[in-house]
Amino acid sequence: MNLILLNHTEIDPLNNASILELQGNRAQHIINILRAEPGDSLKVGLINGNIGKAQVTRIDHKNTRVTIELSPTKLNMAPPAPSNIQLIIALPRPKVARRLVRLSAECGIKKIHFMNSYKVEKSYWGSPLLGEEKIHEQMLLGLEQAGDTLLPAIHLHRLFKPFVEDQLPALINNESALVLHPYADNTSFDFYQSLPAEKNLTLIIGPEGGFIPYEIEKLESAGCTSMGIGSRIYRTETIVPMLIGLFSTRHPRCPSSAAFQNIKTMPSR
Amino acid sequence: MNLILLNHTEIDPLNNASILELQGNRAQHIINILRAEPGDSLKVGLINGNIGKAQVTRIDHKNTRVTIELSPTKLNMAPPAPSNIQLIIALPRPKVARRLVRLSAECGIKKIHFMNSYKVEKSYWGSPLLGEEKIHEQMLLGLEQAGDTLLPAIHLHRLFKPFVEDQLPALINNESALVLHPYADNTSFDFYQSLPAEKNLTLIIGPEGGFIPYEIEKLESAGCTSMGIGSRIYRTETIVPMLIGLFSTRHPRCPSSAAFQNIKTMPSR
Repeated sequence: MNLILLNHTEIDPLNNASILELQGNRAQHIINILRAEPGDSLKVGLINGNIGKAQVTRIDHKNTRVTIELSPTKLNMAPPAPSNIQLIIALPRPKVARRLVRLSAECGIKKIHFMNSYKVEKSYWGSPLLGEEKIHEQMLLGLEQAGDTLLPAIHLHRLFKPFVEDQLPALINNESALVLHPYADNTSFDFYQSLPAEKNLTLIIGPEGGFIPYEIEKLESAGCTSMGIGSRIYRTETIVPMLIGLFSTRHPRCPSSAAFQNIKTMPSR
Repeated sequence: MNLILLNHTEIDPLNNASILELQGNRAQHIINILRAEPGDSLKVGLINGNIGKAQVTRIDHKNTRVTIELSPTKLNMAPPAPSNIQLIIALPRPKVARRLVRLSAECGIKKIHFMNSYKVEKSYWGSPLLGEEKIHEQMLLGLEQAGDTLLPAIHLHRLFKPFVEDQLPALINNESALVLHPYADNTSFDFYQSLPAEKNLTLIIGPEGGFIPYEIEKLESAGCTSMGIGSRIYRTETIVPMLIGLFSTRHPRCPSSAAFQNIKTMPSR
């Protein structure tokens, strides 16, 4: 938790100083991990809003409650810029989907679509882990880690064909869209070099075992290019950050260019 | 498990056909996940050796045993090329270290060093999760996922100073070495562009909370360049695949260039 996230309902934007009593996870973190004392300042962020400092005014160890004071007008730092990548992922096992939501939020992805595919097990769609509240929890974990405040939007698409035919072209919006799958045939490393450093990139990731040929055809008709990912087969949780790293260098001019937008180096001394 | 891994002790390299009876994880996987039947062929690999096909000859559902037959001379495909990246990581929580071993094996990393740092909790070094057998299990999981057979070498360095002073320069071997940490100051995206597409790259990843200034100084004296990673703070498990993706594009000419060496594209139809 590199940032304590606050809800809009918790603070009064018109008031010069808001006093908040935190309980639960946030209070536990402040007391047990940060080991904060009254007078310390904490990095806080308003969900979908700005970042700034709050003062710890009281710690109730016995009941695990922390009182903080902040002036909403002093929340004056913007959150990190969002990624220019949107993810469309064939729904994996719900436990993996949960981790992907957290991971994507951590990496600054703001648009995640889970879609159906022939090899997605039907039962996955009914999992309680995909409930709105559970998904929200995972997003918060990712944002708290990254020091971000902007919640991603998550969409579930239970039907492959209507999604790919009717909605996907608008999501791609004539920009680059790549279907990654381990069984693509042709080879060209120059492909990466040739991708324009344009504004948005849609990455489509298949299920365990890959998309079936019919699905690849449909995705290509909707404007996607198929691309293999070398001779290894990766877990979805591995390929997602790997692709974010890979494509961060392809979009150096884009202000919202994902993870590495503010690359910093320190000269050797 | 995209590959069934076999030990050298299990097969007779001189014999034209080896018959193996598999139990445990491998048999469970073949029966329950692959749902193989006698006559089916399976992708198998010899640890630190080649990859090929084996035939299922018998399935004992009751006792979860699978008999396969293979001719060692037909194990004639090389494993995927290893990555040119070596990782040096300040020892994280043992559970995370475990996941990093699996993840690194999946990504083709063959050299992983866990080292000490001021912010590494001493108790981590005593964890049973870092035992040789436990670490070996995680490597196998990563290799089975990726379809690789080459075991990584893992080294533990419990003392920061002797490791960095006496061993690190030889590991870096006058090639590129980068210390990644979220609190580096200077900014330059051109830095990535300027990295030579040379043979080996050492990436050094700090503990939660980062290296202390003394450690950064020591690492720089040993030949490392410090580099920030933008305005987000990532979990080690996230930054590792992200960096592998990022640096895969920097080393396009290197035959062992990590994850994406055999990039494949399929033309749109």
